[in-house]
Amino acid sequence: MKKVVLLIMDGLGDGPTDNGSLAKAKTPNIDNMKKEHGVCGGMITLGKGITPHSDNAHLVLFGYPLNRYYVGRGTYEALGAGIRMKPGDIAFRANFATVKDNIVIDRRAGRIKTEIAHKIAQHIKHINIEGVDITFTPTIEHRGVVLLRGKGLSHRITGTDPHKINVRWARCKPLNKKAKKTAEIINKYMVWVHQQLEKVKTQRKLKPNFLLLRGAGYYKKVPGIKERFGIRAVAVAGGALYKGVARFVGMDTPDIKGATGDKHTDLNAKFNSAYNYLRTNDLVFLHIKATDSFSHDKDCKGKQKFIEKVDKHILKLTKRADYIMITGDHSTPCTLGEHSADPVPFMLWGKGIDPDNVRFNDVDALKGALKTFYGKEVMKSIVKLIKNE
Amino acid sequence: MKKVVLLIMDGLGDGPTDNGSLAKAKTPNIDNMKKEHGVCGGMITLGKGITPHSDNAHLVLFGYPLNRYYVGRGTYEALGAGIRMKPGDIAFRANFATVKDNIVIDRRAGRIKTEIAHKIAQHIKHINIEGVDITFTPTIEHRGVVLLRGKGLSHRITGTDPHKINVRWARCKPLNKKAKKTAEIINKYMVWVHQQLEKVKTQRKLKPNFLLLRGAGYYKKVPGIKERFGIRAVAVAGGALYKGVARFVGMDTPDIKGATGDKHTDLNAKFNSAYNYLRTNDLVFLHIKATDSFSHDKDCKGKQKFIEKVDKHILKLTKRADYIMITGDHSTPCTLGEHSADPVPFMLWGKGIDPDNVRFNDVDALKGALKTFYGKEVMKSIVKLIKNE
Repeated sequence: MKKVVLLIMDGLGDGPTDNGSLAKAKTPNIDNMKKEHGVCGGMITLGKGITPHSDNAHLVLFGYPLNRYYVGRGTYEALGAGIRMKPGDIAFRANFATVKDNIVIDRRAGRIKTEIAHKIAQHIKHINIEGVDITFTPTIEHRGVVLLRGKGLSHRITGTDPHKINVRWARCKPLNKKAKKTAEIINKYMVWVHQQLEKVKTQRKLKPNFLLLRGAGYYKKVPGIKERFGIRAVAVAGGALYKGVARFVGMDTPDIKGATGDKHTDLNAKFNSAYNYLRTNDLVFLHIKATDSFSHDKDCKGKQKFIEKVDKHILKLTKRADYIMITGDHSTPCTLGEHSADPVPFMLWGKGIDPDNVRFNDVDALKGALKTFYGKEVMKSIVKLIKNE
Repeated sequence: MKKVVLLIMDGLGDGPTDNGSLAKAKTPNIDNMKKEHGVCGGMITLGKGITPHSDNAHLVLFGYPLNRYYVGRGTYEALGAGIRMKPGDIAFRANFATVKDNIVIDRRAGRIKTEIAHKIAQHIKHINIEGVDITFTPTIEHRGVVLLRGKGLSHRITGTDPHKINVRWARCKPLNKKAKKTAEIINKYMVWVHQQLEKVKTQRKLKPNFLLLRGAGYYKKVPGIKERFGIRAVAVAGGALYKGVARFVGMDTPDIKGATGDKHTDLNAKFNSAYNYLRTNDLVFLHIKATDSFSHDKDCKGKQKFIEKVDKHILKLTKRADYIMITGDHSTPCTLGEHSADPVPFMLWGKGIDPDNVRFNDVDALKGALKTFYGKEVMKSIVKLIKNE
């Protein structure tokens, strides 16, 4: 069995330009890896002309087709927040919000700080409504996850976030008959949440006195990566969503001290963890979020500099990995500030590989030996490489 | 052979809410059609969790899988602008822009008006560079299409739009060896365009003295709807992109006087045309753009009112069509202001159909007899209905 690292720099691609972040970044280590044992290609994650999200892109990269395995954003967020979901559970993404007479005044309660949100969350930690246990788990700033556990629940319900202010919060509605009870419970929960949070004393002008729910997902146990592909895989990631998708497909998802899922992440800790986990795993999925965040902020320089930081750490992995794939989950051109359907530059490094003669950037990579290929091929290739097929 | 109308209200869905535009709109005619002979469902256009664009959504609705038939946005725009493309042609979307010393000052030349743009366009109508004919066709406001025709061209090239200001316009680069000549020609063309436009006298502060190119597409002749499915189809649409996709798949795409592809469109003219074309066609694709535009502007009221306008015209079609499908190409929740992956409410009306007992809105439609289904099923169903299978 060989050992593979899948290094995803989120939103790595900058679209069809040879002046992108990857081209501009000074990456002597990646350049050397490329020169000695690297081949390139362009990855079309979901399909031609389709712009991926981060959740669906990762599912596909992990070898899990969407129409069979996409269960809703709330579920991946909940799993990412460390909640152990069981089949039948329902999860929502939730925001602390401010309402007055049921009218939404602020959808994020003025973006409250994480530590304040975690204190307030104590007041709505848990309730049982009609036999259904409902828990709230705060995550970062105004965000959190609401989990429902009980019999006969359905995720075929609407959220309560009206997505705008100065209107009433949206009552939860069933999308089919089976979901009627679940929707009623959510609406009772909303009233309880408001009552509880109103009791909390605060000096804030925008009082966090409500939760807005969206993105209902359900949980089903799916055959894990080990079961489906016969390989042991671990995720080294800071961002909750990525950990969530990884957990969904049965990867180990250890907490890495210092891995924050933003630009302040401790790359040294992440790469050291990846190196250590290579000992006991066939595949290490190493996720870097900041490249995408810089792109969304249209900060091309920041993206470039972060790629350079990643380059400083990568050589360590070559000491234990037989193959390293370096790519993104999708393109997020930093000049555009949003995801795009452009192919993502992809590089495969491996000790026995004869290099092709292209450079690893948005333009040249696509001319490499791997040409352009679809995201669903990635896990197939990983499995073949690991099993030496 | 039966006759079918596919009525697409672009971006119709508002996400999982029973308070969306379709639910709020007063649509007595559609309501009656539903009550008498209508069944509902929820359409997942591309796949679970995938957010469609308008071009890829329509291709899939027309029965053309993306990985085989997606050839780049520029091509659909060019076809939509009335350009008859030939195999081997390359097309770009283009913007009039303002540059100074090759630095982009404004990416839209201050959003010049259509009539001014059309006058200026005369100066860069055509040039032959190294045996390649290059034409510029202006469309709306600062927008247009650049077409390349000649031997040995490749669309595997980058655009010249840097997507931001205060930087140099991007030189066109080849994405593979074969594309080197094409990229060189584009760069020569850019210089010529600038020289020509600099000669034009104008009082404008932001002088339209450059073109920024993006979205290179190529043309290939694909088997048309008639050839693939054995049906005659016509598109009644105002928006150029939709006509372009329809032309690509071999639909007739007559120009409809008054069909503008925006909120000022002449719905009476469009529905009358659809009615007339039903005489000689098996399928009439009737496209309404304004619903999506209102959504992008977060104008829920406008979207609702436009759906009400559509309702006023629809009964006419029931006199000649055997089946009418009413849906969108994707959801664009008007509270969100952008496309989403939410299922699109779908209604099928037909004289022999026993109605289900749900209402046609974002929530209830999904509980209907058609349940949820994928966009690729739409053309399959249309063909079966037409052929009475």
